Amino acid sequence: MNVTILGLGLIGGSLLHALTAHGHAVTGFDLSAETRTAARSFADIADSIPAAVAGADVVVLAVPLPALPGVLAELTDFPGLITDVTSVKGPVRDLIAGQRFVGGHPMAGTAESGFAAADPHLFAGCAWVLCLEPETDLADWLRLCALFTALGARVVPATADEHDEAVARISHVPHLLAAALANLIDGHPLAAALAAGSFRDGTRVAATRAELIAAMCGGNAAAVRRVLPGVVEDLDSYANALSTPDPLTALLRRPVELRRGWPAPAAEPVEVEPEREALWSLGRAGGWVSRVGVSGPADSGTKLVAMRPGTDRNSF
Amino acid sequence: MNVTILGLGLIGGSLLHALTAHGHAVTGFDLSAETRTAARSFADIADSIPAAVAGADVVVLAVPLPALPGVLAELTDFPGLITDVTSVKGPVRDLIAGQRFVGGHPMAGTAESGFAAADPHLFAGCAWVLCLEPETDLADWLRLCALFTALGARVVPATADEHDEAVARISHVPHLLAAALANLIDGHPLAAALAAGSFRDGTRVAATRAELIAAMCGGNAAAVRRVLPGVVEDLDSYANALSTPDPLTALLRRPVELRRGWPAPAAEPVEVEPEREALWSLGRAGGWVSRVGVSGPADSGTKLVAMRPGTDRNSF
Repeated sequence: MNVTILGLGLIGGSLLHALTAHGHAVTGFDLSAETRTAARSFADIADSIPAAVAGADVVVLAVPLPALPGVLAELTDFPGLITDVTSVKGPVRDLIAGQRFVGGHPMAGTAESGFAAADPHLFAGCAWVLCLEPETDLADWLRLCALFTALGARVVPATADEHDEAVARISHVPHLLAAALANLIDGHPLAAALAAGSFRDGTRVAATRAELIAAMCGGNAAAVRRVLPGVVEDLDSYANALSTPDPLTALLRRPVELRRGWPAPAAEPVEVEPEREALWSLGRAGGWVSRVGVSGPADSGTKLVAMRPGTDRNSF
Repeated sequence: MNVTILGLGLIGGSLLHALTAHGHAVTGFDLSAETRTAARSFADIADSIPAAVAGADVVVLAVPLPALPGVLAELTDFPGLITDVTSVKGPVRDLIAGQRFVGGHPMAGTAESGFAAADPHLFAGCAWVLCLEPETDLADWLRLCALFTALGARVVPATADEHDEAVARISHVPHLLAAALANLIDGHPLAAALAAGSFRDGTRVAATRAELIAAMCGGNAAAVRRVLPGVVEDLDSYANALSTPDPLTALLRRPVELRRGWPAPAAEPVEVEPEREALWSLGRAGGWVSRVGVSGPADSGTKLVAMRPGTDRNSF
């Protein structure tokens, strides 16, 4: 497949390495001349977006959210399939409306960034959300699903709204909690000196750049604002129960059980029809596609090999 | 020194090993006959509290907070020095009022528990708060300080109230935030499946037993209740700033700076007079005593070797 990657940071660069290793014809582009030079040792690198996308079957937008509108302005005539890797999916869906698009989000961030940190194995075992909307072309979705599962990714089908709500819960709100927790040592050197494991782990992601946290959370503002009040409500209920140990224990049983049961202990292999409802149901149950069968054309006889957490063992 | 340890769990057992290795005459007692049998290979183990404390210079109460009143009832006639290792200091101070007591808290918990997990090196480099109140006998404080610094502990002087406020900030409230965060995957298998580093670290301590978290937080209820509203206030301010990236970035700069600056990069050796004000000031600055000099009697010529974070580098 002819794949063009626009933006060669950690994700774009890793994808360039991985797809090249899997025999695809990869073209890349990055705004930074320095990055383009570094990437030329590994793939065909163009000097402009129009040159990069000419003849591509698939274009992967691997630029940060704020850079997307500028890149999209150069793709209005591109007839092929477009996907992206940004961490928020509703706003990107709205931005690209009208083009042949399947939104994506590989959950593969690391502390590193930039092309120099790119790793061809970054996607092995990583969850890669591929957005499936009522209007998504199923054949396009399956095409990308086959491309990314071949790299070892677990492709998770979800609507953009389901994705945004989920990442608010497990990434954006956790970053804000970590920040609020880090503030607790402000003006308290004694507390900072006594802090150990629970403070270290609870605040780890507060060391992320402030601009990045703000961009992630701000880009998913609606979902984050829906999720935060539940956290505040829980904290209030803990405060109210503090002086009465029994109620507090009772309130803590469920989160303790949830954390001990996470990650889900086992998933079972299942075969899933390449149909919208079956895929949505798989994603909502915490499952993923691990392989696209090749028994027929993409939109008819294809079977999907999937993994689905056992319902009896999945306590979420 | 004749030291008696009541309660031979992880902390009491580790202390038994460490003090024995340092040449002290250690007597132990535990309510569990099984634990007493196991400990007999390592020290003199008594079969009752009165037998254990007879002739002791120092008694270390290494039982959980709820067991303290019962043990104290058997120590009303004990004339020696009493210390403890529980994680909350105000309530214990009030409980023991009237006896020769210096409260302590070694910050040395691990995931393990019980005598079998005891480790003679558990206290090497660990912060050990020793409570210094206006009414504390300074010679008693220095005696324990010498005992524990010899095991490699960093002895941190603080009042019980300062301690309780600090641990609410860096341990108890973090446990409640971890619980509230763990709740966010309840009923959301998709979110649980996508959860990775920020959720894993942010919720790690929510896997602690519910009863333990409730006991820790409930035992320090007043301080936890004072600290929690600040967290809720921060979360509200983040929610309000979400749609406007610049204010959110501005709000996040300080916690990011705090987390990146923690732990304090360097502490400088200083000599501290064995005086109340000097010790309080050391603890409040995030410093600790690392050695008690032997140049004179405990309450006169003694010098304390201490470490104090450099004021220019300490951003808390």
